[in-house]
Amino acid sequence: MTTSPVKPAFLSSGEDLGVVAVAFSGGQGKGGVDAGPDALIKAGLLDDLKEDLGYKLHYDGLIHSYDDLIPSHDPPIDNMKRPTACSKVNARLHEQTYEHASQGRMVLTLGGDHSIAIGSISGVARGIRERLGKPLAVIWVDAHADLNTFETSPSGNVHGMPVAFLSGLCKHDVFSWLTEQCLIPADKLVYIGLRDVDRGEKKLLRDNKIKAFSMHEVDRYGIGKVVDMALEYIGDDTPIHLSFDVDACDPVHAPSTGTPVRGGLTLREGDYICEALHQTGKLVGMDLVEVNPMILAKEGGADTWQVAETVRTGCSLVRCALGESLL
Amino acid sequence: MTTSPVKPAFLSSGEDLGVVAVAFSGGQGKGGVDAGPDALIKAGLLDDLKEDLGYKLHYDGLIHSYDDLIPSHDPPIDNMKRPTACSKVNARLHEQTYEHASQGRMVLTLGGDHSIAIGSISGVARGIRERLGKPLAVIWVDAHADLNTFETSPSGNVHGMPVAFLSGLCKHDVFSWLTEQCLIPADKLVYIGLRDVDRGEKKLLRDNKIKAFSMHEVDRYGIGKVVDMALEYIGDDTPIHLSFDVDACDPVHAPSTGTPVRGGLTLREGDYICEALHQTGKLVGMDLVEVNPMILAKEGGADTWQVAETVRTGCSLVRCALGESLL
Amino acid sequence: MTTSPVKPAFLSSGEDLGVVAVAFSGGQGKGGVDAGPDALIKAGLLDDLKEDLGYKLHYDGLIHSYDDLIPSHDPPIDNMKRPTACSKVNARLHEQTYEHASQGRMVLTLGGDHSIAIGSISGVARGIRERLGKPLAVIWVDAHADLNTFETSPSGNVHGMPVAFLSGLCKHDVFSWLTEQCLIPADKLVYIGLRDVDRGEKKLLRDNKIKAFSMHEVDRYGIGKVVDMALEYIGDDTPIHLSFDVDACDPVHAPSTGTPVRGGLTLREGDYICEALHQTGKLVGMDLVEVNPMILAKEGGADTWQVAETVRTGCSLVRCALGESLL
Ligand SMILES: [Mn+2]
Ligand SMILES: [Mn+2]
Ligand SMILES: [Mn+2]
Ligand SMILES: [Mn+2]
Ligand SMILES: [Mn+2]
Ligand SMILES: [Mn+2]
Repeated sequence: MTTSPVKPAFLSSGEDLGVVAVAFSGGQGKGGVDAGPDALIKAGLLDDLKEDLGYKLHYDGLIHSYDDLIPSHDPPIDNMKRPTACSKVNARLHEQTYEHASQGRMVLTLGGDHSIAIGSISGVARGIRERLGKPLAVIWVDAHADLNTFETSPSGNVHGMPVAFLSGLCKHDVFSWLTEQCLIPADKLVYIGLRDVDRGEKKLLRDNKIKAFSMHEVDRYGIGKVVDMALEYIGDDTPIHLSFDVDACDPVHAPSTGTPVRGGLTLREGDYICEALHQTGKLVGMDLVEVNPMILAKEGGADTWQVAETVRTGCSLVRCALGESLL
Repeated sequence: MTTSPVKPAFLSSGEDLGVVAVAFSGGQGKGGVDAGPDALIKAGLLDDLKEDLGYKLHYDGLIHSYDDLIPSHDPPIDNMKRPTACSKVNARLHEQTYEHASQGRMVLTLGGDHSIAIGSISGVARGIRERLGKPLAVIWVDAHADLNTFETSPSGNVHGMPVAFLSGLCKHDVFSWLTEQCLIPADKLVYIGLRDVDRGEKKLLRDNKIKAFSMHEVDRYGIGKVVDMALEYIGDDTPIHLSFDVDACDPVHAPSTGTPVRGGLTLREGDYICEALHQTGKLVGMDLVEVNPMILAKEGGADTWQVAETVRTGCSLVRCALGESLL
Repeated sequence: MTTSPVKPAFLSSGEDLGVVAVAFSGGQGKGGVDAGPDALIKAGLLDDLKEDLGYKLHYDGLIHSYDDLIPSHDPPIDNMKRPTACSKVNARLHEQTYEHASQGRMVLTLGGDHSIAIGSISGVARGIRERLGKPLAVIWVDAHADLNTFETSPSGNVHGMPVAFLSGLCKHDVFSWLTEQCLIPADKLVYIGLRDVDRGEKKLLRDNKIKAFSMHEVDRYGIGKVVDMALEYIGDDTPIHLSFDVDACDPVHAPSTGTPVRGGLTLREGDYICEALHQTGKLVGMDLVEVNPMILAKEGGADTWQVAETVRTGCSLVRCALGESLL
């Protein structure tokens, strides 16, 4: 039995937790983010979930690099870099999270870069829709909107596009396996923490009236009220998936990530979001992505302390979303 | 005359300040916290209180190490470490703060580890009860609840138990001198800043319905509203003692302490609590504890700047509680 | 055309931006703050305003050191240091900002020490009064009140006196060119961020009922509510000048300044103030002052990163006030 007194509204039990560890970095150009899951697990995250929080883990014990799916030659298609790897890895991950979700388990996906949310979220969405006949809401906590289409993306990196594919705002043959029941309605999507949004993304946000609480709103209202407003917007009767990019947190707390942006969430605000979502009892899935334990070393400025701090932040966010509380 | 325009409700005058400096570290295992009062005073704290804030100090000029009370052999009793030293030092300190409180003075106690609150608060409580026939309320600002009983304590360190003894939730022959009039009613106790609470303490908090604002509530409501709610809970007609453990503040602001916990109060939030309590006119006592100027050196990572920052934080908290204001 | 959707209420157009770069450090004793404008411009500030935000710049391309106005011998008068230089430079700057303001342009002044607000604000105030028949409101964001008169000033530095001269609370022959139409009514002046205010200034604030939100109020209400209250106090029909001293921000974000004070605004809070004022459509001028790229070097502790961070903060504040937004 878990230690949390919260009764989950959309899961078969409160104690079954599906876990998928995804060592994928092909959604962007910097190596090292594939070492994220290993660092989180070595820091004791899964042990804590089992021993401290009381979860029954459904975990295959593997950190998936999906080498069999990654082609040796994977040229850009319509500006998307490594399109075949991104599609095949996500299609496989989709089946993994779908399997957990269709059994009524909470699903935790540890990345990897944020492109993996295409697979993790679509799998949970399909499982929820089949099991409960409901759409899935997504709260996307990130410095970035990750909403570029392959046409608006300045970089061509797929980790900047997952929300466009998941919401159906953008379709492409490469991701033809993303069927209707995999998608997130645009009015069930809420951003928190945005502060580095491309011009094309700003237009997409406005044109599609997507709900977004940038850091400006966090400052204006405080994180307590922002989470309240996010939940009110989603509505009472909807299961929620939390997709947490560690770069939503300020570089003080999460320096070891691929695209840090200053002016971010404090650790306390990040933890608060996770704690408050847990307390709703509506969480059915979570991604924790973009922890890159090698990024600083690669840039010639390795700082063990900064890596440890980032990993600690990532672990804290997951534990809070899964029921760790201060009192 | 003090510079503060606030008229104290429960003191004989606004300018008489009793000060006790307590160089005691026996409530926990790390040396150095006994050097806290000396560091605070050397940094000019008492001079500032006298010269800038206008207090008339009642201070014996001593930093008490109570060597005469500390036995050479002091084996654990019922899991409590150094029980005789803890009891005798606190009994003596009790008499010192009682003496000040019974004269109607504000009482400032500089620690030392947090076990000394057993003596400082019980002395003030007894003085207040005799003088005004009222119970004393306590606002305990701390990363920790310090609410373990000798039975629930994982460490056996008495600095994790003062609230259990002071509230009467736990009684033991070792502290038999803690009579009824020394105690704090559980419904006059409020915590602010908690973020590292033992499982046994969580149960005690729940079972005894003790009011606690953890960092989650600070994030949710903001420090302004939290202090308002704390004061409303205590009620209008009650004198207040502020027991401030410097580790309530984030390690960024107070790194040089025995058990730092990340995700704490900002310096501004700490100062705010003190300023707001001063403004009520109901403060009758304050402890400032757990400044350990030697802790980092002892762990091989001496950093003068961090010690200075911690001492500066401690001094700032005391000055704010005693009337320093920004405008 | 600017990228901002905000329509300015008191300017001829939304796109015309007058810029004056002022390399003046005579309002205080530390060299290096005269290098502030160069550092801000070299960091790309003006390019960003033109290219990213779409402004049409009216800028003479010069960084004015006003060498012709600075006497070789400039002894104190009535406790004011370098009085002739301060007066003559400000009188010239007054003409420059007046010229822009009378054309209906937004006016941006880059300092330099805060004494230059005497010239920049009086010029804008006169231009606004002549063009619209309205007084100018000033929101002064600063750790300090800069409200000393030559009689109350402990240091004699004029950068601690601009508000006294601009509000007419203090008059002196040295600044005889400050005529009535140059002045800011005391009830159109609002402070945000104060935390180091001299005793004489506190009295002036109280006696003249000047509206001030210190850091205590920022903590109590949150920055969102503080800005709302500031705007409500000023009233709907008044053009606003924002005078932003970079030392309002915490030394973490703006260490490279002459008189840093801990416990300041976070970068996010600073940016928020600027963003929120832009959104009112009532801004007609802004000063960004006290960036000193040489201060740390001069004190033997040069840290390139700290200088860069301060410059980055300064640029961010200006861009936010001129319409950069997160979404
Ligand atoms: Mn991101
Ligand atoms: Mn992302
Ligand atoms: Mn503590
Ligand atoms: Mn404590
Ligand atoms: Mn200043
Ligand atoms: Mn200033």
